[in-house]
Amino acid sequence: MRRTIFYISDGTGITAETIGHSVLTQFDDVQFDTYRIPFVDSAEHAEAAVLRIKTLYAQTGARPIVVNTVIDPALSEILASSGALMMDVFAPFIEPLENELGVKRKLSIGKAHGLVNFAEYEARINATNYALTHDDGANFNYADADVILVGVSRSGKTPTCLYMALHFGVKAANYPLTDEDLEKLELPKRLVPYRARLYGLSIDANRLAQVREARKPNSRYATLAQCRWELDQADRLLRRENIPWLNTTHTSIEEIGSKILSSLGIDKQMY
Amino acid sequence: MRRTIFYISDGTGITAETIGHSVLTQFDDVQFDTYRIPFVDSAEHAEAAVLRIKTLYAQTGARPIVVNTVIDPALSEILASSGALMMDVFAPFIEPLENELGVKRKLSIGKAHGLVNFAEYEARINATNYALTHDDGANFNYADADVILVGVSRSGKTPTCLYMALHFGVKAANYPLTDEDLEKLELPKRLVPYRARLYGLSIDANRLAQVREARKPNSRYATLAQCRWELDQADRLLRRENIPWLNTTHTSIEEIGSKILSSLGIDKQMY
Repeated sequence: MRRTIFYISDGTGITAETIGHSVLTQFDDVQFDTYRIPFVDSAEHAEAAVLRIKTLYAQTGARPIVVNTVIDPALSEILASSGALMMDVFAPFIEPLENELGVKRKLSIGKAHGLVNFAEYEARINATNYALTHDDGANFNYADADVILVGVSRSGKTPTCLYMALHFGVKAANYPLTDEDLEKLELPKRLVPYRARLYGLSIDANRLAQVREARKPNSRYATLAQCRWELDQADRLLRRENIPWLNTTHTSIEEIGSKILSSLGIDKQMY
Repeated sequence: MRRTIFYISDGTGITAETIGHSVLTQFDDVQFDTYRIPFVDSAEHAEAAVLRIKTLYAQTGARPIVVNTVIDPALSEILASSGALMMDVFAPFIEPLENELGVKRKLSIGKAHGLVNFAEYEARINATNYALTHDDGANFNYADADVILVGVSRSGKTPTCLYMALHFGVKAANYPLTDEDLEKLELPKRLVPYRARLYGLSIDANRLAQVREARKPNSRYATLAQCRWELDQADRLLRRENIPWLNTTHTSIEEIGSKILSSLGIDKQMY
């Protein structure tokens, strides 16, 4: 079975798509074709969206589903005239919240992922620059780091650092364990002062060899033997030094990031 | 007025926080203290969450609000015993969807931001590596690029590329316009074959000078005159070459990314 989903928003559509995706993963027998219609902030844009929905309805013969985060009720009404099944994301929560808080909500559109708080936004961008300049041992001055990821090459450190920086404004550096570090089985001296901010990433040897092979085909670096040795030594080092760590093989960067922040007690707001 | 919000999930908590944040921005007279409790996937974890909620309720005297994306109804019931105002994110949508689709949802937890589709996940990570290796003119081979951002130094190209890569699996390169390009007022030859994939970023001169000053204090690069000249020339070049562009000064990377993907007709699913 195939069905069509439209994510419609007066802003970026990120909220609509996030919740829509979460709900739809609970219906995995159905194949969903998804379309994003962002910045629907006028009657004209809403009418254009209705036309797209109606066209697809006619083409497929199946009623489309609209996940709607448009805040202006007049625009939502226009969207509903498409005949789609409307899933209004905010509607169920507004009344209970208004009652609980004793204030009326404000109809300000596109705020959730807009540039509302400039200082917070700047912190994200600065954290992203920090992650880029403190990636892969490029800069060993970790005084400002909120977290320093430690692991062998290609264990997932860089994307995880970028994710935590972009979405939590966390200054995340990463240090790649070298063969020398792994032979000594000692925490590199430059990391010792920051022990409380260290977090280790590991990965299955087969997966690591596969990733490295794609990057440097036929290299010693990509052999299973080399990957196994590095990972064994790294695991030993992290255990001995009592550094928290996790295996990234079956874990998304969102899950890794979430676990690291919990583990280190970093309770920053997500953007 | 201050109120406490708990984002509680059996996975990362990203969906809960995304929708909670969107709803709460509509109540901007209230100050919200937010706490994230991810990976609540057992009665034990749910009981621990209840204890935290009750403790805060007792301390503040104000009823906490729980934004809940835990899928197992038994765990949600435990959470509700905290006495908090429960906002169950999925509840309102499940029944209408089950009726529309004619199938029952499956109670599989933590899927929304977990590692479900390995090929999709790999595409995101590869796109992130692509953005890093094609950043700031580091590599001019744009054959595989889905989009190439063009603009003066510090106009917002790098964070936007990383965002599009991480969340849409889009291969985003960026090319910094040099003084030479800006003097010639010609599209650099290496970009000509990829004209349809170009997108320009601009920024207000005052803001650019401020950002550059933070990076290279007292440099010619950071003077308002230099920023104005570069931006004027870049705007002229982009207009003359008919390349779509936007001003990033008051625009978040989520908004910039969303507009670029719409403009270039890239309809990839968001992760």
